[in-house]
Amino acid sequence: MKGKLYVVGIGPGGREQMTLEAVRCIEESEVIVGYHLYLRLIEGMLAGKTVISAGMTEEIGRVRAALEMAEAGYTVSLVSSGDPGIYGLAGLVFQVAGDSNLEIRVVPGVSALSSCSAVLGAPLMNDFVCISLSDMLTPMEKIEERIEAAARADFVVVVYNPKGSRFEHNLERFREIMLRHRPPDTPVGIVRKAYREGEERVITTLADMLSHRIDMVTTIIVGNSNTFVSGGRMVTPRGYENKYRIERA
Amino acid sequence: MKGKLYVVGIGPGGREQMTLEAVRCIEESEVIVGYHLYLRLIEGMLAGKTVISAGMTEEIGRVRAALEMAEAGYTVSLVSSGDPGIYGLAGLVFQVAGDSNLEIRVVPGVSALSSCSAVLGAPLMNDFVCISLSDMLTPMEKIEERIEAAARADFVVVVYNPKGSRFEHNLERFREIMLRHRPPDTPVGIVRKAYREGEERVITTLADMLSHRIDMVTTIIVGNSNTFVSGGRMVTPRGYENKYRIERA
Repeated sequence: MKGKLYVVGIGPGGREQMTLEAVRCIEESEVIVGYHLYLRLIEGMLAGKTVISAGMTEEIGRVRAALEMAEAGYTVSLVSSGDPGIYGLAGLVFQVAGDSNLEIRVVPGVSALSSCSAVLGAPLMNDFVCISLSDMLTPMEKIEERIEAAARADFVVVVYNPKGSRFEHNLERFREIMLRHRPPDTPVGIVRKAYREGEERVITTLADMLSHRIDMVTTIIVGNSNTFVSGGRMVTPRGYENKYRIERA
Repeated sequence: MKGKLYVVGIGPGGREQMTLEAVRCIEESEVIVGYHLYLRLIEGMLAGKTVISAGMTEEIGRVRAALEMAEAGYTVSLVSSGDPGIYGLAGLVFQVAGDSNLEIRVVPGVSALSSCSAVLGAPLMNDFVCISLSDMLTPMEKIEERIEAAARADFVVVVYNPKGSRFEHNLERFREIMLRHRPPDTPVGIVRKAYREGEERVITTLADMLSHRIDMVTTIIVGNSNTFVSGGRMVTPRGYENKYRIERA
């Protein structure tokens, strides 16, 4: 008698930004597995459940524990912030599960991409790339090649994992490469802890971006050549200005 | 006495994939503005409200109507599917609102990116780009340059608006460019109407992708050089295989 495994994205961290499906899956689960900081975000929902908490670097341990409990017959939620499908644990779950016939369901959540964009205004109205600066699992040469390609082809660039204790200087490298292709006054949005207690939001420029607090709970969005700042908001036009005169009726 | 405007993402379309905040904003609003197909997705929530519906190409009309009603004192939700911050109406709202001091809040939703990824498995575990093939607002040369850059730098590629009546052949061009840099057996996921009635899901290859139904309610994800298909799921490894032996405990 097998259980099932939900790989649940709880969004940026507030209860309000969870989907109804995520809430239902967690309520329905007997076992909740997650990184302890994510579990803290859903503290009020854990009463009466078996909770398996593990550190950030023990991702594979969390995944194995979740699969084992599900195979032992329990309904299990493996919880992560944002969307488990974007740099999240969904891939590792399928890799470890192999050809197991366990019922596994990915429950998408509001990604950091979406939540940070909403906090900044509307920077993602045109083509964009998402790049992680962590070189623990991807070699830095490959990351640099991608930054270069994105900068050259005028994509808006979303940066995940901009700075960690084991990759302190990749962000400086990122900025150098961007500056080869975009002017120093290109708008840059920096969001820490979107929708959580202590949320910070800065709109700055490529020139000045390094003078702000940036760490592992920060997401950065660099505008394309048309992105502008207006009324404290970062906006990338989709191109409507070419088709319509934009004015009040 | 001004009202306020919520720019609300309702996610892929099922009630279950809406966030609690999106539900609350719609409930709280006296006026709901949206494209008629999106409004149909939340039919059960519209009783007793003023509903302003408009066609797909009348985006600017919807935005103006929403702003006018909010400035007249109403609480208004301008509703869209997915996330209004990703190729959505959030940008146009800020462009038209200009320096108005109206309270405007973007309510992020589960994007097509996230919902299609969840339906396919875990294709977005590594760096990716998002490209729209609609050349109505961006010139095709710029789009081609971006496709080329993304293909060359080994990004996973998410395609929005793959085919419309006014841009029938851009997808063929997209495939040609991708095939210059990736083998014909590169995994491609095609999702129509994710999480809606009539959902379709195909995992195919670059070689065969054009033989499947693709239209404006389709999102396509093309894998990078490491993406594989296993147990009917499309998975891009994050790189864990270099650090850990992945096996059951």
